[in-house]
Amino acid sequence: MTPEWIDMAAARGAIAAGRDRSSALYERAQHAADGDAMRHAFIRRFDGAAGVAAFVDAQRQAGAPLPPLAGLAVSVKDLFDVAGQVATAGSVVLADRPPASADAPAVARLRAAGAALVGHTNMTEFAFSGVGINPHHGTPLNPATARLDATPRIPGGSTSGGAVSVAAGAAWAALGSDTGGSIRIPAALQGLVGFKSTARRVPTDGCVPLSTTLDTACAITRSVRDAVLVDGILAARTATLAARPLRALRLALPTTTMLDALDAGVARAFDRAIDTLRGAGATIEEVTLPELDRLSRLQVAGGFAAAESWAWHRRLLAAHEADYDPRVAQRIRRGAAIGTADYIDLIEARRAWIAALEPRLRGFDALLSPTVAIVAPAIAPLVESDAAFHAANALLLRNTSVVNMLDGCALSMPCHAAGELPVGLMVWSAAMQDETVLDASLAIEVALAAAPSAPPRG
Amino acid sequence: MTPEWIDMAAARGAIAAGRDRSSALYERAQHAADGDAMRHAFIRRFDGAAGVAAFVDAQRQAGAPLPPLAGLAVSVKDLFDVAGQVATAGSVVLADRPPASADAPAVARLRAAGAALVGHTNMTEFAFSGVGINPHHGTPLNPATARLDATPRIPGGSTSGGAVSVAAGAAWAALGSDTGGSIRIPAALQGLVGFKSTARRVPTDGCVPLSTTLDTACAITRSVRDAVLVDGILAARTATLAARPLRALRLALPTTTMLDALDAGVARAFDRAIDTLRGAGATIEEVTLPELDRLSRLQVAGGFAAAESWAWHRRLLAAHEADYDPRVAQRIRRGAAIGTADYIDLIEARRAWIAALEPRLRGFDALLSPTVAIVAPAIAPLVESDAAFHAANALLLRNTSVVNMLDGCALSMPCHAAGELPVGLMVWSAAMQDETVLDASLAIEVALAAAPSAPPRG
Repeated sequence: MTPEWIDMAAARGAIAAGRDRSSALYERAQHAADGDAMRHAFIRRFDGAAGVAAFVDAQRQAGAPLPPLAGLAVSVKDLFDVAGQVATAGSVVLADRPPASADAPAVARLRAAGAALVGHTNMTEFAFSGVGINPHHGTPLNPATARLDATPRIPGGSTSGGAVSVAAGAAWAALGSDTGGSIRIPAALQGLVGFKSTARRVPTDGCVPLSTTLDTACAITRSVRDAVLVDGILAARTATLAARPLRALRLALPTTTMLDALDAGVARAFDRAIDTLRGAGATIEEVTLPELDRLSRLQVAGGFAAAESWAWHRRLLAAHEADYDPRVAQRIRRGAAIGTADYIDLIEARRAWIAALEPRLRGFDALLSPTVAIVAPAIAPLVESDAAFHAANALLLRNTSVVNMLDGCALSMPCHAAGELPVGLMVWSAAMQDETVLDASLAIEVALAAAPSAPPRG
Repeated sequence: MTPEWIDMAAARGAIAAGRDRSSALYERAQHAADGDAMRHAFIRRFDGAAGVAAFVDAQRQAGAPLPPLAGLAVSVKDLFDVAGQVATAGSVVLADRPPASADAPAVARLRAAGAALVGHTNMTEFAFSGVGINPHHGTPLNPATARLDATPRIPGGSTSGGAVSVAAGAAWAALGSDTGGSIRIPAALQGLVGFKSTARRVPTDGCVPLSTTLDTACAITRSVRDAVLVDGILAARTATLAARPLRALRLALPTTTMLDALDAGVARAFDRAIDTLRGAGATIEEVTLPELDRLSRLQVAGGFAAAESWAWHRRLLAAHEADYDPRVAQRIRRGAAIGTADYIDLIEARRAWIAALEPRLRGFDALLSPTVAIVAPAIAPLVESDAAFHAANALLLRNTSVVNMLDGCALSMPCHAAGELPVGLMVWSAAMQDETVLDASLAIEVALAAAPSAPPRG
């Protein structure tokens, strides 16, 4: 049994049953963290995580109950405060900050649940872009595509290193953030599960902001049931899920925007997943959502991320612009051109857009879309050409950012078959429908796993 | 029995018991609406309200249950859409708007509960200022102080005409809005009850905005139990209140800011009310709230109201500035100078301010403060001098605006004795503590009414 084969729930089960020990699993995760696949994935590794696993084993031996996360390795995006560490948001301009005096609340909840926090993971500088290229700390390669072809492909971002830590077996879960897709894009491109919860459910204090309106603290995992487990800890959820069967679900398939310009591989995997779910008894109705075609009006001039990142960065950028990734600095600077009245109009326009879209979603348990319109592109052309970079970034973010603008929630799970480049299936809904989306995702994961085209594990 | 003597709950009780009829009460309210005290208080009166009262009587005769508002007269601030009417926000620049095609949700809820909507009431233009002077439609006189001295005094604002409609017997309740104190200030200055609920509880759609962040749709009534009744309808509340006795309450008396520079009459009435409540068994502890001294930082440059009203008005103001009250135009124009980054900083500063203040309120059922630091000033000096106007406005808003910035809730009730100029006692707390504040206010109202210094009714 290698870490690649099992998910966190299974690992916890093995420890609970006495078939494995936290310390042994921690050693295997550290071994994976030392491997080639993890190159550029951590920005800094933490001492002390070994002690957590050893403590859990000792407590277990003494008859104490196993904590929810069982001393298992969890990585933390370089955006979140970890007591005693300096979070640098994938940049070099924050290196002089004093170490955090306390964990960010999201980190504290994971720690209290028994996570062994193994390190700060690499990311797109300041979480800008869904690509995952980082000129300061290097760009981690996509480990899932590396097994299939020789082309170095992007990991997806902005939670690039976090996803790699899970895909490479160095962590069972990766704490990250999702402002336009930063959890779901790398999860989709690496064959993992990413759940972007409704923004208000998990505190974002102690986290360098990209967009204070849209930022969401959430995680990447290996399975849907792990997503349920980790979200339960992050959101302090107490309710149990309904465990409704697939046949009881009414699902929508939006035909507007979300199916435009799909890679052939994405279209094939997505269509096959829909067929599989219908064959397994799911009710899936095509719907048009004209609001999705009007979304670009809300993103003009960079939208919330530009205005709000400019507010946070303006003094830092004035002093240290040469130390920023020029593509990031350029995107932040767009915010300087957004007037206050335009920004307030944007808040109102978003409210009206949500009010128009939400009623169309009522009556459906969730919606199904491809998470990302394309498979992971090669890194080299995106490093060389700004135009290629911006085009790829826009396409990477297109579907996922709909859910952020909706203030909604969405889970991405793999829907490709073994031997294919990873493709994500996004199960999504409106604000605070998190439990319904998670519950539907559990049923969908089971149905996809039972098909001949079942996604590979890990 | 005249309308001045009883509250809405009593009037409803009289109809329910067959001692009075909706139509008869409607006639009396219309008679009051025609009286001198109502001069400048309505901007337009609605046809059709008589039909509501007659319909309620007929239904009643046929054995149907009496609706909650029993066909009783309710006025509507000129800010809210009423189907078939043009809401002009106390201005002249909106007169060309088409009539509203539907009621604002707050209006619709009152109508569905059996209110007879009698007219749009006068207000400070666009709800700017707590004074209540309106150069376009005239300034209604304060009817409560007119009974006591010969000085024409301000009604308070911005819900000036709405408060007058209740004080003069032309309506049992007045739908209004509160962004910095616009419900509580006129209620306090006219010896009425005003309840500013937590902003998110009642929809503000169909209402000309002053500050989209702070605006609250709520009402002025004659008694606390009427405030409970009307808030229940506006907020679609289903829970019943706990009816806790005064002895069971733990109340706080903040000594920071809220007691500064009080008029002698306000200090006397407030101190007496505190003594009365202590004498009746209430636990009241003095507390310091250092955050209150730092509030002015959040209001610099006009704060939310300036930035957000500028966003709404900027095109209208460019075309029609000469038709605005110059004092209102000047305050809106301040918003043009607030940069986007400063505005976003303001949102974050407010969040941090609330996070610092809220923990200090925990453990208390409510806080007690004077609603307004002064009694109603004379109108003439405020018309003549900008400096006097701005000074009075700042003092009128000082205590009430704390609760808006806190995203909290507050009820103002009379605490002066017969023969004294009206003084309001504000019972307040943090966001979503509305039911606790209303419940505490019921107990406090009973205790004040039982004292020798009981506030006069009506």
